[in-house]
Amino acid sequence: MERYDIAIVGTGPAGVSAAISAKIRNKKVLLIGDKDLSKKMRQAHEISNYPGFPKVKGEDLAHAMAEHLAQMEIAITNVKVVNIYAMGKYFSLQTTGETFEALSVIIATGVMPGKMIDGEEGLVGSGVSYCATCDAPLYRGKDVIVAAYGKEEEKEAVFLSEVAREVAFFPVYNGDPSEMPGNVRVVREVPTGIRREGPKMVLETAQGSYETDGIFVLRESVSPGALVPGLATEGPHITVDRQMRTNIKGLFACGDITGRPYQYIRAAGEGNVAALSAVEYLS
Amino acid sequence: MERYDIAIVGTGPAGVSAAISAKIRNKKVLLIGDKDLSKKMRQAHEISNYPGFPKVKGEDLAHAMAEHLAQMEIAITNVKVVNIYAMGKYFSLQTTGETFEALSVIIATGVMPGKMIDGEEGLVGSGVSYCATCDAPLYRGKDVIVAAYGKEEEKEAVFLSEVAREVAFFPVYNGDPSEMPGNVRVVREVPTGIRREGPKMVLETAQGSYETDGIFVLRESVSPGALVPGLATEGPHITVDRQMRTNIKGLFACGDITGRPYQYIRAAGEGNVAALSAVEYLS
Repeated sequence: MERYDIAIVGTGPAGVSAAISAKIRNKKVLLIGDKDLSKKMRQAHEISNYPGFPKVKGEDLAHAMAEHLAQMEIAITNVKVVNIYAMGKYFSLQTTGETFEALSVIIATGVMPGKMIDGEEGLVGSGVSYCATCDAPLYRGKDVIVAAYGKEEEKEAVFLSEVAREVAFFPVYNGDPSEMPGNVRVVREVPTGIRREGPKMVLETAQGSYETDGIFVLRESVSPGALVPGLATEGPHITVDRQMRTNIKGLFACGDITGRPYQYIRAAGEGNVAALSAVEYLS
Repeated sequence: MERYDIAIVGTGPAGVSAAISAKIRNKKVLLIGDKDLSKKMRQAHEISNYPGFPKVKGEDLAHAMAEHLAQMEIAITNVKVVNIYAMGKYFSLQTTGETFEALSVIIATGVMPGKMIDGEEGLVGSGVSYCATCDAPLYRGKDVIVAAYGKEEEKEAVFLSEVAREVAFFPVYNGDPSEMPGNVRVVREVPTGIRREGPKMVLETAQGSYETDGIFVLRESVSPGALVPGLATEGPHITVDRQMRTNIKGLFACGDITGRPYQYIRAAGEGNVAALSAVEYLS
């Protein structure tokens, strides 16, 4: 398998900046994320404190960054990273597409909106899954629950319905779900807890409890603690030092995922530092 | 005296970024530094990793930042800061011009090129001065030495020659000094040490020792430890945490002065964080 020098997860200003600085240092870079860059930035009405761009529309700053990536021939791989495993001398990145390998990894996913479900983190890989593509085969002919934090996750539920016996679909987003296959039951309740009971999993809401074989929690991004086993975190943030090093050798983080303030220029600055720290690590 | 909320020392990307973010938060900002912004940036042939500006000339990025400051009506006060004193509830900034007061201070001076002279730091205010304007009156009719680390310091030597009896001028820069008044003696040797001997000061070079009454060490910027009494430093760098806080409450630092890597986008990111930390401190 092709092995990258630096895999960068996230295409907000932190990830973009990291990719640019890593590429300048002649590293083989894998940049994973939304090909339209940060949705939050694109939707920002006006950004006033990114020095050099007075009163810029988020859309225009995103465009300038996309142009910068294009000029440097940095491509974006548009998949979702589900798990990152430290394999000793390299990292294995499990995604909704293929699996990738890299000698070092920079996490720049932004901070996950909202909280995890109570009990979720402890059961990842043991009844809770973040990836329909990866784990659907485990539930052939069985029942699953899908907690979906975005309309775009509906297609994952449809895919699961082709494999599983029955799917209970909990839409945790605004708007009505599209029409679903016959074996998908839509439950308009908000998941509040997850627990295991012997061989079964139980999802709780304020209204009741739902027993199933497996629970898929599908969000735009995975919480860092769940993404990388053993990663030191503080609440929703990854713990880093001034060089953007995490507690795992070869693994770096930058931008909003490392804490406040949530600011575009700060994220871009940290991306640069993370990239140069990764370059130093590789040498 | 007019008291500012936040005084920012330095007009490289860190200082510019801090000023912009502080002004957006409606703080009364004093920005001190070169009105043409960072000389290092202006002279950079090409900057490739400031996201949003692919392959930009340093001059053009500096121009974009100057434009940003102008649009936000942030003026630059073009003096050199010689000392910063923590006065308890505020800071006093002694400069080559007037003295300023501010509730908080952000140091963004960039890293001082080269090393201090052996013995220099311990004798600041006790025979070693960084400011001709401030301390010339102390040497009326006496002898002084000027160690000048830039051609632009020659005018300080000329000014001192009008007050002092004799000036020994050590040009530590490329090129020949311009013609000097009659009581200025040019010594083309590199200062290596400074010490006190009773009431006299002694400057040493590889070639000899020079006795005098006072020694002026004139550089583009003053080393942080000499700038602020009690400031925690590591070599040429100010020690800061991830929020850009120094060991002195209300005093923050950002950019190259806080350590490597020396990168424009990183400096701009840190300026933003320092400003928001100062805003938080003020509240």
